[in-house]
Amino acid sequence: MAKRVTGPEIERLIQLLAKLPGLGPRSARRAALHLIKKKESLLVPLTVACQEAVDKVGICSVCGNVDTIDPCTVCSDERRDASVIVVVEDVSDLWALERANAISAKYHVLGGVLSPLDGIGPSDLTIAQLIERCRSGSIHEVILAVNATVEGQTTAHYVTDQLAHLAEDGITLKVTRLAHGVPVGGELDYLDDGTLSAAMRARTAF
Amino acid sequence: MAKRVTGPEIERLIQLLAKLPGLGPRSARRAALHLIKKKESLLVPLTVACQEAVDKVGICSVCGNVDTIDPCTVCSDERRDASVIVVVEDVSDLWALERANAISAKYHVLGGVLSPLDGIGPSDLTIAQLIERCRSGSIHEVILAVNATVEGQTTAHYVTDQLAHLAEDGITLKVTRLAHGVPVGGELDYLDDGTLSAAMRARTAF
Repeated sequence: MAKRVTGPEIERLIQLLAKLPGLGPRSARRAALHLIKKKESLLVPLTVACQEAVDKVGICSVCGNVDTIDPCTVCSDERRDASVIVVVEDVSDLWALERANAISAKYHVLGGVLSPLDGIGPSDLTIAQLIERCRSGSIHEVILAVNATVEGQTTAHYVTDQLAHLAEDGITLKVTRLAHGVPVGGELDYLDDGTLSAAMRARTAF
Repeated sequence: MAKRVTGPEIERLIQLLAKLPGLGPRSARRAALHLIKKKESLLVPLTVACQEAVDKVGICSVCGNVDTIDPCTVCSDERRDASVIVVVEDVSDLWALERANAISAKYHVLGGVLSPLDGIGPSDLTIAQLIERCRSGSIHEVILAVNATVEGQTTAHYVTDQLAHLAEDGITLKVTRLAHGVPVGGELDYLDDGTLSAAMRARTAF
């Protein structure tokens, strides 16, 4: 702001809100004013929720999910099929698959994808921990639910190679990946050639 | 979420973030994950900033601005012309005028506009306080910087009427409003008829 019109505490709040994904400087100002106007009904509860997150939230030591307990809610859920591990890039992917109710299994969050240009190698991801989980012998299937990007597919190939080495120790696993195809509700006319070709190759009986 | 995948504290944080203007349920989830991942650099400072806002922020008893001091930064700024009051609907309008460096004067935040359909009458706004400020006799001009909406203009007319009553006590003020016209940088082709007519009527020497 050109001239100071309000206290530095409020300007600091605006600056921090502007760092959230989806909020720019202008919407952060709107959000800060909204918070201040709804002090009792929104600002106070949000402060409490942030403080609780600071105090309690951590990364699950087993799968890498974000939770207030360790092992996390998913890892400690005994109704899930513990012999299937769904490998995802990020916690948000885990949450998306759970929202879709796609499978009732365990997860493993890689924490990113292999990207030599950004200096991200295998040791920056939780690939070693995944191999260790599979070495226990109780895992029958690993589902590679990484994004369909170049980096995601590279990572999937690398993980598959690493898992293949387990055969030397007598451990064999089924390694699968998500199907490519036409998104449900999607129109063919708007789809790219790669998706259309993949959907045609993987056609199923009607 | 269909099944619980994380702690209730995190879900509560997501719910509260989703109440901010500009954030929906999906972007609130992204924001919450972003906060948790950047715990030390973002979540902790934001928690502190929220707590400071809870403790210190209030409404200026003179003008209605939001600040950590009372009277607010604007009201206690002695370099401003204290004989001019800019009347705005909302604190965000005050901040917008200050960002634009439009004038160096004092402000008065009405806290809304007259809207009989929503049950908002003169007593719900700070019109009485504005009249009281003007009654002191040191005010020479009141600039009505309300939005160019029907409700805004109705409110402007009502405030003008109230200010006119001050003449009975021997207090006369100049009451002005923002100019209507072509926005700077705007293209005529995209402007509505009302704006174009107003700009034509208020044409100035070149």
